[in-house]
Amino acid sequence: MYEGAVQDLIDELGRLPGVGPKSAQRIAFHLLAADPADVRRLADALVEVKARVQFCTVCGNVSQEELCRVCRDPRRVPSVICVVEEPKDVVAIERTREFRGRYHVLGGAINPIDNVGPDDLRISELMGRLADGTVTEVILATDPNVEGEATSTYLARLLVPMGLRVTRLASGLPVGGDLEYADEVTLGRAFEGRRQISA
Amino acid sequence: MYEGAVQDLIDELGRLPGVGPKSAQRIAFHLLAADPADVRRLADALVEVKARVQFCTVCGNVSQEELCRVCRDPRRVPSVICVVEEPKDVVAIERTREFRGRYHVLGGAINPIDNVGPDDLRISELMGRLADGTVTEVILATDPNVEGEATSTYLARLLVPMGLRVTRLASGLPVGGDLEYADEVTLGRAFEGRRQISA
Repeated sequence: MYEGAVQDLIDELGRLPGVGPKSAQRIAFHLLAADPADVRRLADALVEVKARVQFCTVCGNVSQEELCRVCRDPRRVPSVICVVEEPKDVVAIERTREFRGRYHVLGGAINPIDNVGPDDLRISELMGRLADGTVTEVILATDPNVEGEATSTYLARLLVPMGLRVTRLASGLPVGGDLEYADEVTLGRAFEGRRQISA
Repeated sequence: MYEGAVQDLIDELGRLPGVGPKSAQRIAFHLLAADPADVRRLADALVEVKARVQFCTVCGNVSQEELCRVCRDPRRVPSVICVVEEPKDVVAIERTREFRGRYHVLGGAINPIDNVGPDDLRISELMGRLADGTVTEVILATDPNVEGEATSTYLARLLVPMGLRVTRLASGLPVGGDLEYADEVTLGRAFEGRRQISA
């Protein structure tokens, strides 16, 4: 409907996840009216990200070098690996400043509907990292949903027989939440995982 | 939180209208995993749109030449001008195939809250187009909201004394809609604008 370049941009924007035709149009007109330097910066950021960003050869996290920031850091504890689905989970956990070990990014979760099986995840790479005996604990931090649980169950079956300490992040009530509004499964998990308070 | 280029891209995407930090992150990771040629195409589309797209010197619509597609087309009726707020309104009206005249894009609507007054709109350019007497009808097709109505009222006050036929798009029930769910204002307008059916 639009002339050449405008329609091309709307089409390209519309291919992005979560951007429908209306949003694509709105973004395109925003960019048409924007400072050319701003648009240039966005275009450059796109080119740069493909040219410079790779995946860490050890943990699979996004990285600008062969090893990611965490794997490069000698202060990180080498005996604990936290297994997550995606690089964004690494960022979420780093934000807590609770974890001083290393990560392993699977690149997804087992999901038969989307045809993602264990062989599509970076599980053999994880096994490779466990071979030399440095790692003593594996924390399974996949998402607390059906796919994440299935992935953790699958991994636990592989890892527990190897004599490793295998842990799963606690499920329960979100801090700052309201008990009344918790769903039954979460509330059930909160009961199941209740802790004794010492006097 | 991410290394250099990834964070730069998330920041740039997050500046787009309707794209929050979570969406920016999701789009960035989608692009990281995407075919480099696809990302290149998006970057090129951004650069192209700024390099090639300008605004029609007559009507203010987006265009790749000095005159837009409508203003270049000799089959378009020169005596009727349809006044709209934005280029996307031109596209919406063109889609109906109802209108064979020309357009005038104001570039917005009068909105005191956002500090947009009549002088910020392309009203003097509209007056210039009306000077030679070719135009006999001006259709006010601004949005049917407070700002659009204010803009149309303002324009009508200028144009009616010039002896032009000035019309406003009909308000009423949307076709395919459900009377029960129409808001009171729309339903009121539908009564106000009711038409007699000839036997």
